[in-house]
Amino acid sequence: MFKNAWILTINEQMEQFPNGYILVDGEKILDVGAMDSLPCDITYDQCIDAKGAILLPGMVNTHTHIGMIPFRSLGDDYPDRLHRFLFPLENECMNEQLAYTSAKYAIAEMQLAGVTTFFDMYYFEQQLAEAAEEMHSRSILAETVIDTVTVDVPEPMGGLQYAQRFLPKWQGNSRIQASVAPHAPYSNTMEVLQQADALSRKYNVPWMMHVSEMDFEMEKYRKEHNQSPIEFLEEIGVLSPRLIAAHCIHLSDHDIEVLKQYDVKVAHCIGANTKSAKGVARVRDLLAAGVTVGLGTDGPSSGNTLDLFSQMRLFANFHKTFLQDRSAFPAEEIVKLATYEGAKVLGMEKHIGSIESGKQADFILVETDSVNMFPIFDPYSALVYSANAGNVRDVFIAGKQVVAGKKLVDYDEVQLRAELAEAMEQCGFKEKALKALSEK
Amino acid sequence: MFKNAWILTINEQMEQFPNGYILVDGEKILDVGAMDSLPCDITYDQCIDAKGAILLPGMVNTHTHIGMIPFRSLGDDYPDRLHRFLFPLENECMNEQLAYTSAKYAIAEMQLAGVTTFFDMYYFEQQLAEAAEEMHSRSILAETVIDTVTVDVPEPMGGLQYAQRFLPKWQGNSRIQASVAPHAPYSNTMEVLQQADALSRKYNVPWMMHVSEMDFEMEKYRKEHNQSPIEFLEEIGVLSPRLIAAHCIHLSDHDIEVLKQYDVKVAHCIGANTKSAKGVARVRDLLAAGVTVGLGTDGPSSGNTLDLFSQMRLFANFHKTFLQDRSAFPAEEIVKLATYEGAKVLGMEKHIGSIESGKQADFILVETDSVNMFPIFDPYSALVYSANAGNVRDVFIAGKQVVAGKKLVDYDEVQLRAELAEAMEQCGFKEKALKALSEK
Ligand SMILES: [Zn+2]
Ligand SMILES: [Zn+2]
Repeated sequence: MFKNAWILTINEQMEQFPNGYILVDGEKILDVGAMDSLPCDITYDQCIDAKGAILLPGMVNTHTHIGMIPFRSLGDDYPDRLHRFLFPLENECMNEQLAYTSAKYAIAEMQLAGVTTFFDMYYFEQQLAEAAEEMHSRSILAETVIDTVTVDVPEPMGGLQYAQRFLPKWQGNSRIQASVAPHAPYSNTMEVLQQADALSRKYNVPWMMHVSEMDFEMEKYRKEHNQSPIEFLEEIGVLSPRLIAAHCIHLSDHDIEVLKQYDVKVAHCIGANTKSAKGVARVRDLLAAGVTVGLGTDGPSSGNTLDLFSQMRLFANFHKTFLQDRSAFPAEEIVKLATYEGAKVLGMEKHIGSIESGKQADFILVETDSVNMFPIFDPYSALVYSANAGNVRDVFIAGKQVVAGKKLVDYDEVQLRAELAEAMEQCGFKEKALKALSEK
Repeated sequence: MFKNAWILTINEQMEQFPNGYILVDGEKILDVGAMDSLPCDITYDQCIDAKGAILLPGMVNTHTHIGMIPFRSLGDDYPDRLHRFLFPLENECMNEQLAYTSAKYAIAEMQLAGVTTFFDMYYFEQQLAEAAEEMHSRSILAETVIDTVTVDVPEPMGGLQYAQRFLPKWQGNSRIQASVAPHAPYSNTMEVLQQADALSRKYNVPWMMHVSEMDFEMEKYRKEHNQSPIEFLEEIGVLSPRLIAAHCIHLSDHDIEVLKQYDVKVAHCIGANTKSAKGVARVRDLLAAGVTVGLGTDGPSSGNTLDLFSQMRLFANFHKTFLQDRSAFPAEEIVKLATYEGAKVLGMEKHIGSIESGKQADFILVETDSVNMFPIFDPYSALVYSANAGNVRDVFIAGKQVVAGKKLVDYDEVQLRAELAEAMEQCGFKEKALKALSEK
């Protein structure tokens, strides 16, 4: 039981309880309401005074690459950094141990920032799924499929076979789902995309792909097929409510109609998209058409942070400015995108994404007594415009507290960093990175 | 003496010492260099191990309104919030005590976020200057002049007489300067602007004005004078190196030439400008023309945060996206804008803005051991893309430590908030604000 919390339920009516309570029983939320309507006859083992902290559903990061922490801050402002720094280093250095320690570190970082659920695509996803399970995370881990040899498969598009072995292993797990993620339409064959879709259907999990992100991608499909990537994907029959299309920066009106028609979900990564000067996706038009959109950070080398506070701020300022309308996307709507809509993108809205009785107890408390958080006339405004990841105080996933008073409950941040640093050390990561940079 | 710091000097060569030391004597920096070149014969009273923290010059917030903390998060997403919520409440509630307690709170917030110097424009600037002096801040406080009755003067444009009394009082103070700030060209007479310029010349302090910020402002000057606001200001003879033009969102090529010709400084507020959907100033063109540009947060009701970390991130993403060039404005350049260039905007670059022997000891340490700050291949990247205000650990102004281990040294954050809340309470601020919101 928590009392005296400023509860944002993010339920259908967007109900809030400025002085509310929440009752948790095991993994689930038993009841939520205003303090003055607290039933007299309830008993509880533990009662915590939230002292006015904002309590909201755990945030959902719909697109990231948790194995990529080692690449953060490497060559950020270089035009061709992917091919110049990231891919060569990945090929030389990435291994099971490095991916695993990176994943644990990234999950810790997200939990400390109030992200309770995420969708990941990278390599060594079996190890990443183990890391996620150990850390009591709720997540979908999807093995990347791409038409090159990768760090964990010896033949091009071998990620598909990896996924075929990987998906059944995690069936029935209550918090961890295994999935598949073709890198992009242009970096896979039509058959692979269709098989990935079939796998997703068979195991009933969402799958993911980078779509309509790159200028060359748009040109290629226009030139070779006289289509957009989304029209191409429709033609080959892989669009469904199970597909999460990451980015979707370049969309025609017709693309938006098609996404709606098949109920394809969109993972919108405003921070990564604008840092790399790729553009601003048409989110208002997507939402107006009825497409489900969530927020994502992209990997720690693309967006650098894994928290959704920085995404919410960037989202507000970019969309208002591009729409030339300061009243577009009020803060309340943005917080909903970071929570409930994200859950919907991942097909989890029946279980998480709002504070309602019967749902999983995935929620976070954001402090209101730090210097940047006063005064608060509107808690949504405070979350979007004033708060940063450092204001997250407590985090619960499936009823279990994973962050208490800004510290991990079961892990030691220093220890996790030491383990990651050790794995980087073993492959000479830093020296190789600095050498690559010095050859710039 | 600090040892083992990752020192970013922001000197002309942008020299860094990945493992460096800094020696401080009284108010000034005595010496800075690499640990391995530390002279053998020096003695010091105190030696602190920075343990790899990033040490850089204190940040300079070139444009804010520190009296406006009470308005934070009030009606953020409403189209006409200034006239609907802010001005009426200001008229009803703002007084000496509220402005003073707000100023102390805002200065605390900035110091905790690594801002050591700022330029403020608001009302009751005598009280704000006293608050700034008490808190050992380095700042310029400028009384607003506007063609209406205000909360501290009984007649329109009475701020000018206020300033005439206010400026001489602070002459010779080593850290606090008093100045004058006409609200905007359109809200003052030509004579007032000329007198403000004359005051600034007489006391040799920078003065400030909101310029080329509003659409209606641009239209008005085009229609009435067939000029831009900047051309109008040139014609009436008030452009000089002492003028800081805040915002400058709407600039023609000719405006940029004029700004350069008179060495007018620009305070660029990317967060406030884009949150209110006003647009993105042509900073690359300004810099290419040789105009000095610094970063500003604008007031806590416009930009909501008073730290420059959020501004640096927004700056990077917005300018890269608007220029369609991911390599535009590398992180190093952005950190320079937040420090040295800001100092130059305020005419203080001889004394602050870089870590060099003989300069004032205004510097900050940013922790590198928090979860969002690993790994660091480039400290500038880490500051711009990974860090947030909560990563600032220690802050020094004129050799005196004002923040130690993320806490104010001489003040209690809780106490400052209680004093501000009390001043708000006395004028029924919250009730009036919520009433205004409910009538939306
Ligand atoms: Zn991605
Ligand atoms: Zn302003």
